[in-house]
Amino acid sequence: MTAPRTSVATVSLSGSLREKMTAIADAGFDGFEVFEADLIASPFSPSDIAKQAADLGLSVDLYQPFRDLDSADDRRYQRNLGRLQRKFDVMEQLGCNLLLVCSSPLPGAVTEDERLVEQLLGAADIAQERGMRLAYEALAWGTHVNTYRHAWDVVRRADHDALGTCLDSFHILSRGDDPAGISDIPGEKIFFLQLADAPRLKMDVLQWSRHHRCFPGQGNFDLPEFGSRVVDSGYAGPWSLEIFNDVFRESATGRTAADAHRSLLYLQEKVAERRSPTSSTLFEAPAAGPIENIVSLRVAAGPVEAGGLGRTLRHLGFDMTAAHSRHGLQLFTQGPLAVAVDTTVDSLWTSPGVPAHLPAVAQIGVRSDDPAQWQTRARAFGVSADSVSMPGVAGTDHDVVRMSVTGATSLDLRSRASAGAWQSAFDLVPRQPDSPAAPIVESVDHIALAVPADSWDGIMLLLRSVFGMTPHEGQDVVDAVGTVRSQALTLPTENGTVRLSLNMVPGRSSSTDTLPAARRGGVSHVGFACADVLSAAEQMTARGFGSLRISPNYYLDLAARFDLDQDLLTQLEKHGILYDADGSGGEFFHFFTPVVGEDLFFEVCERRGGYDGYGEVNSAVRLAAQLQR
Amino acid sequence: MTAPRTSVATVSLSGSLREKMTAIADAGFDGFEVFEADLIASPFSPSDIAKQAADLGLSVDLYQPFRDLDSADDRRYQRNLGRLQRKFDVMEQLGCNLLLVCSSPLPGAVTEDERLVEQLLGAADIAQERGMRLAYEALAWGTHVNTYRHAWDVVRRADHDALGTCLDSFHILSRGDDPAGISDIPGEKIFFLQLADAPRLKMDVLQWSRHHRCFPGQGNFDLPEFGSRVVDSGYAGPWSLEIFNDVFRESATGRTAADAHRSLLYLQEKVAERRSPTSSTLFEAPAAGPIENIVSLRVAAGPVEAGGLGRTLRHLGFDMTAAHSRHGLQLFTQGPLAVAVDTTVDSLWTSPGVPAHLPAVAQIGVRSDDPAQWQTRARAFGVSADSVSMPGVAGTDHDVVRMSVTGATSLDLRSRASAGAWQSAFDLVPRQPDSPAAPIVESVDHIALAVPADSWDGIMLLLRSVFGMTPHEGQDVVDAVGTVRSQALTLPTENGTVRLSLNMVPGRSSSTDTLPAARRGGVSHVGFACADVLSAAEQMTARGFGSLRISPNYYLDLAARFDLDQDLLTQLEKHGILYDADGSGGEFFHFFTPVVGEDLFFEVCERRGGYDGYGEVNSAVRLAAQLQR
Repeated sequence: MTAPRTSVATVSLSGSLREKMTAIADAGFDGFEVFEADLIASPFSPSDIAKQAADLGLSVDLYQPFRDLDSADDRRYQRNLGRLQRKFDVMEQLGCNLLLVCSSPLPGAVTEDERLVEQLLGAADIAQERGMRLAYEALAWGTHVNTYRHAWDVVRRADHDALGTCLDSFHILSRGDDPAGISDIPGEKIFFLQLADAPRLKMDVLQWSRHHRCFPGQGNFDLPEFGSRVVDSGYAGPWSLEIFNDVFRESATGRTAADAHRSLLYLQEKVAERRSPTSSTLFEAPAAGPIENIVSLRVAAGPVEAGGLGRTLRHLGFDMTAAHSRHGLQLFTQGPLAVAVDTTVDSLWTSPGVPAHLPAVAQIGVRSDDPAQWQTRARAFGVSADSVSMPGVAGTDHDVVRMSVTGATSLDLRSRASAGAWQSAFDLVPRQPDSPAAPIVESVDHIALAVPADSWDGIMLLLRSVFGMTPHEGQDVVDAVGTVRSQALTLPTENGTVRLSLNMVPGRSSSTDTLPAARRGGVSHVGFACADVLSAAEQMTARGFGSLRISPNYYLDLAARFDLDQDLLTQLEKHGILYDADGSGGEFFHFFTPVVGEDLFFEVCERRGGYDGYGEVNSAVRLAAQLQR
Repeated sequence: MTAPRTSVATVSLSGSLREKMTAIADAGFDGFEVFEADLIASPFSPSDIAKQAADLGLSVDLYQPFRDLDSADDRRYQRNLGRLQRKFDVMEQLGCNLLLVCSSPLPGAVTEDERLVEQLLGAADIAQERGMRLAYEALAWGTHVNTYRHAWDVVRRADHDALGTCLDSFHILSRGDDPAGISDIPGEKIFFLQLADAPRLKMDVLQWSRHHRCFPGQGNFDLPEFGSRVVDSGYAGPWSLEIFNDVFRESATGRTAADAHRSLLYLQEKVAERRSPTSSTLFEAPAAGPIENIVSLRVAAGPVEAGGLGRTLRHLGFDMTAAHSRHGLQLFTQGPLAVAVDTTVDSLWTSPGVPAHLPAVAQIGVRSDDPAQWQTRARAFGVSADSVSMPGVAGTDHDVVRMSVTGATSLDLRSRASAGAWQSAFDLVPRQPDSPAAPIVESVDHIALAVPADSWDGIMLLLRSVFGMTPHEGQDVVDAVGTVRSQALTLPTENGTVRLSLNMVPGRSSSTDTLPAARRGGVSHVGFACADVLSAAEQMTARGFGSLRISPNYYLDLAARFDLDQDLLTQLEKHGILYDADGSGGEFFHFFTPVVGEDLFFEVCERRGGYDGYGEVNSAVRLAAQLQR
């Protein structure tokens, strides 16, 4: 046995049918489902489409949907059989012999199982004559049939070779149905499998289904459990994705198709993890290697902003210890941390008419004792072996944040240098540190990245699949210029936790063009951890740092909300330090640098007592202070 | 008695507290509610804010919110009283003596009314000592108290001069509660009134409340009924708006504030309509004048696109009958319809870095026998008397569509010419019509306007308030490049119906910059009505029109779905005519011109048997055909 065939419904992607098919083939799928509306809008005839699919090496796995077949009105049912014949005409030309039939959501649907079986049998007879097969699926909002158990029961009673059932994870899991019963359906009677994940939303199920589905690994459904039950059944057909998502409908077709294919590999890996490893024929990627924390950053600054960035890094305790004059690189180090500042504006960072937002985090370096293992894993998920690119981050289509795993003590520059080779990229003229003090900050606590809405799900999937990061509960953070959807992902390491926080950049509109730049380009920052926030603030002040001016009203409110010592309050106010507590002994102290350039700033924080958040409650106060500069 | 004072919570607007206060004063409000987070983020002290408010002529009506006062844990309650004292310190400086106290949504909330009354009394005693008053409000998601009846019952039992209730329409109507009981609350015990509308959404009430509230006249709540009950009670305090809305949080502060104030006037008018006219002290605008249908359009074309636009208008049966060489205007007429093409690119149509989308509908002329009455009404709603501007329509912040009511037989050019004076704006050299045929199209059936998300609610309110248009059920229309929210508004007139269809332009993002221009700038079109669609298509073909090439697959599907005569199908396919039927005898036939320039196209349609839609089901096919050009 081999791994399951992969398929995807054309409705999941944007573009014309022809564009979708090309992207589906490029992403590595074996076949696809033709969504009827895509065919109807296409200028190509069904036989042209069949030829194009064959040329691309794709099978046409399913034609869908055929709605409202059964009817309490017999004349209408007869008309529906006529419609069915017309659709079989089209499918013959398409070279497709499987049709998806949905349970009817109409008030006139058949409401007795016996009659429904009869009507399905009538259709199955016609299908058989035409060499076709019908996959009957329960819509979650079907009038009479709305559970997979009911759909299977009807199919079982009909007992016709041309009639099977279709399972769709959205219709089953959105209702909270238990997928355990899938194990008992004979695999050969499951004619098709459609997979979709979704975020947990309390809303009308029809709207939820039509606008908010996403790929496995982007939502909250327990798809590994679902997939495992399907494997139990013995189903041997394609694993296909049927996703209705407003963002995907507007997104670049190729990128969405690549995400789609990766999500099927990710799901298979998760299903395989639950099952006996010996029997599995599912895709399995090499395990992730051991990992330490984030050790390095590359920041693209350009010539104008490099000065201010260097000043801020020095305030934070970094010193410039090497430089590469020809490549315009400056290396700042502090203890085990390294920040490479790229003072040239790479062509990566501008696209016609779109101003680059500089400085910006361009690369995040994570250290591993076995980077080769990470690279093998990444390659298995269809990702460049050197680094994982997060497209769109930082505000323009050409901007990319790379996340690299390297074996050297520092970063993989521009993904071109091999592990460890970065040092030779510098002149290796050590500079004299401004002051040889002990480190002010000890490690990277978290990195917050501004992510455009249409890159969000893809980046989430990358971080979950390749890096095995765990997403936490999302938050909406409100401030003076809008609401930001924020989502943290973490990865436990040998010496701490890698924490990334994604902040969704709102779609630009006429009015947001007049917003402060800090919001237009999104909010990116790097939070450094220190052992003692007051001492860090004192040391930074000694290095010339002037903290953000936080409103005195904030400290009046802190005094009202928490039983804080007056001396401590005075110290916090003096240094512009913000505070949060989690109600179970955890405390968080943090302060911020002003924004450097347009979009980037730094945070210094101290966690006490197991505090696990990011002080989001203080975001509005922080932004107000930054907007004042 | 006078009309109620108007107020608005600062949380309803974007920007700093100082910016919000200025916008609130400019919009004509009497006072405002200070949202605590705004004060905390402000660099100004509470007494500075008090001075600024006085200078702007604004009263500080309410400080809010004070959360989680009551507690089953008595130590916590005592600490809350301490917090209350600190907030009174702030309010003293603010010159505000009314505090909003919300029912607690915490698991530790008090759950016996008796104890709750005691705790509220303890707080009210402190308030009285400090010269303050408490307005107790039921949150819809409160643990123990979550209905206005319950909140009022507790307040009634406490019977304390410093304790009253606060009514919030969202918390009451979102639960489906009957507002009738408000009539029975003594007006002097209602200390404050907060108004919010909301679209009908089936979702978690907390999320609904925090993100999707809108101004009265922008949502689906029956606020006129609610307001009428408040008038019954004898309440004499301010009518205030408390709106949490993600779009408003990102929108231009001044524009949102102006919408906010207009919404309160609109609501008062609607409440007054329900009540005895003699007793009302509410705002009442002059009634709308008599109206005929849309008779004219101004289209901004620019020199490059004017040629193609003129050609398309001629295909549609229009002829150029006058021109104004100095102003670059061309007048096309057909029967009673007039289209003025502005061949100059006005400075209105470009802003730095934002390409103008041309041609675009710039003005819609509606005819009335009494335009002065309309102008008086518009002025009462704070709108320029000459025309109603819909900002942001057509894709840039500087683009405006004006809707004018004029007494002349045609359009009000650039709002400068007085009614009827437009004729003198032309050279009045009548040109020879290309052919003296009978009109091909008879009237404007509908106009579809592309509306950016952040202008949507404001435009909806303008059309509902000034023009008294009725919104219909919204639709999501899916096509090859995304999902478009579409909403029709209608206004019955003496000779037909004015129909506008608003299509929401998705927020731009990195990927949508690569979308076809037709979608980036939105989808605007003008639909003309004809008496016989086949005859219109034939006449247009005779004038040189080549219709959009519609996929043959579309007609195969029509044949499967409807019992259409084969001859008719052949005719439809020949002319690229699309079809829809409403299932109750209504039919719709329509065809489209190719897109002129980047964003504008025209439709010719025939309605039969009372069909009342717009053929939205055919949008994807239409767009696919337009993208092929």
